[in-house]
Amino acid sequence: MAYSEFDIIKNFLATSDLSFSRGGVELGIGDDAAIIKPPLDQNLVVSLDVLASGVHFPSDAEPDVIARRALGVNLSDLAAMAADPLCFTLGLTIPEINENWIQQFADGLSTVARKFNCPLVGGDLSSGPLQIAIQVHGLVPEGQATLRSGAQIGDSILVTGTLGDAAVALLGLGYQSHLDSNLELLGWADPQPLFERYFSPSPRVEFAIGCRGLVNAAIDISDGLLSDLSHILRASGFGAEIEEVTLPFSTTAQACLSEKMLLQACLNGGDDYELCLVVSQDLKDRVFQAAKKFDLPLTEVGIIKDVDGVRLKARDGTMVAVKSDGYIHF
Amino acid sequence: MAYSEFDIIKNFLATSDLSFSRGGVELGIGDDAAIIKPPLDQNLVVSLDVLASGVHFPSDAEPDVIARRALGVNLSDLAAMAADPLCFTLGLTIPEINENWIQQFADGLSTVARKFNCPLVGGDLSSGPLQIAIQVHGLVPEGQATLRSGAQIGDSILVTGTLGDAAVALLGLGYQSHLDSNLELLGWADPQPLFERYFSPSPRVEFAIGCRGLVNAAIDISDGLLSDLSHILRASGFGAEIEEVTLPFSTTAQACLSEKMLLQACLNGGDDYELCLVVSQDLKDRVFQAAKKFDLPLTEVGIIKDVDGVRLKARDGTMVAVKSDGYIHF
Repeated sequence: MAYSEFDIIKNFLATSDLSFSRGGVELGIGDDAAIIKPPLDQNLVVSLDVLASGVHFPSDAEPDVIARRALGVNLSDLAAMAADPLCFTLGLTIPEINENWIQQFADGLSTVARKFNCPLVGGDLSSGPLQIAIQVHGLVPEGQATLRSGAQIGDSILVTGTLGDAAVALLGLGYQSHLDSNLELLGWADPQPLFERYFSPSPRVEFAIGCRGLVNAAIDISDGLLSDLSHILRASGFGAEIEEVTLPFSTTAQACLSEKMLLQACLNGGDDYELCLVVSQDLKDRVFQAAKKFDLPLTEVGIIKDVDGVRLKARDGTMVAVKSDGYIHF
Repeated sequence: MAYSEFDIIKNFLATSDLSFSRGGVELGIGDDAAIIKPPLDQNLVVSLDVLASGVHFPSDAEPDVIARRALGVNLSDLAAMAADPLCFTLGLTIPEINENWIQQFADGLSTVARKFNCPLVGGDLSSGPLQIAIQVHGLVPEGQATLRSGAQIGDSILVTGTLGDAAVALLGLGYQSHLDSNLELLGWADPQPLFERYFSPSPRVEFAIGCRGLVNAAIDISDGLLSDLSHILRASGFGAEIEEVTLPFSTTAQACLSEKMLLQACLNGGDDYELCLVVSQDLKDRVFQAAKKFDLPLTEVGIIKDVDGVRLKARDGTMVAVKSDGYIHF
């Protein structure tokens, strides 16, 4: 059977698993556009990310992995703004119709969409090199979105989860790192427990919403702690001091990389989709309480200072200026 | 100079020409997400379209043409919903950085963005095969969006402008038509006056807003009158009768194609981005008045009937059932 784009949308995407109804969405998939009605006193937060085959995911990745990753990294942007996921649109270009591929892709999307109560409401499907454009829409009470620009001198810098895991996973999966070409796994450790950290990022949405009103600035760590923290610093007009000894690593990552390479993976590896939060001293305890409530590791790694860029206090106590070497997308 | 994605965004996209401020946009380009605050009693209408090189535009097209076309076809979806353009996001993947290309692309976007007061508020830029994903956001007073599903028996079917022009332009530009392979230009006519009709569609936004509350159903003609009208018919549960003799053609299109091929181009050619409106008899005059106000040709081409699909009353008076052969995107 020859499928038209309309058949595919009807059979695989406009399904109750994926384009389910949800308050705030007046009209979903199937017309020229979707209609959203944000509740009173709520702002709408929107973010669009594109994932290209061979650039943002390995070209031989499984369709459900691509889908989970694509929606996950977009939802991570909503978490950075402390927004509650509302719905998403999808622009999918695929080289050819493969019913099985589409079904698995839709299943992957549905898993994440259901988890975050964030239905598909529209988009576009056509022929072309494999790319996934997703725009997520979230709600946040007026004035409560967390921006990059609110960091103050003396604020603590906190990060969720562990860092560098996705870089280890990529190496373990056999893909070349964009980092130091010397970055390689120690032979005797098994990186497999970290594969899901790359395949299926966990956007820290619940925690971010739980911290509304407590955080001065936030960003999600997509390009490495250094690159992403630098966005906060530039937007806020300050610098930062980070302590190497405090940086949170998983035991698997620690087993897989030398100490020096682990630091590289954390600072510049990217793809972790954890949150970097900047919090004033008097509210820090409450942010840690929120993390505990959601059973999410949270670590203080540094402080906002009136310096240029980022300084790292190394394990031996020396202070070094570090230059961002986060992933540049060209 | 090696440009990073952040340099390009800062220098070419986050400019006052393109990401200008506008009421309803609380936060534009530069954070993890943009923030939109729809005015009270307005709904937000969103539509995402992807244009892939070699599929939706010729791979050798000029960057400003690609940009104008990409934003134009998206705004046409807002016109179909009678929504007022608010802002847009852009997901651009390009194979390599070319400063000159980006500047021209940004200029093309800016021309359309300024015309419709619809600034760029965010998005994503990265390496990959040339594709442009654009999501447009529009405002419409609660309950006044025009859907596909409201057509009633006895309603008139109206179309704006002239049809088939873009198909003629594509042939004139030397690109193969997806239509009947016999579709070819008559040798002695010059299709050049129609090239802009393909390159730079004119979304019928002002007219659509002027007709709010007067129209039972609407769609923009992107895949050909037959295919797009069929979406309305399926959504509304009726059929339609079209009169060939009433179909509006430009003099250039009439000079360039035989009568038979002209009908093909109109019914199945697509890319015209005119509006197809379904209007009850008692409101028809007011819709024609609105068209006159905006100096927009408007033509009655048929009527909604309780029949299956679309019947065409040919020039010789015979009635034929026509099958949709609109562009299928695979």
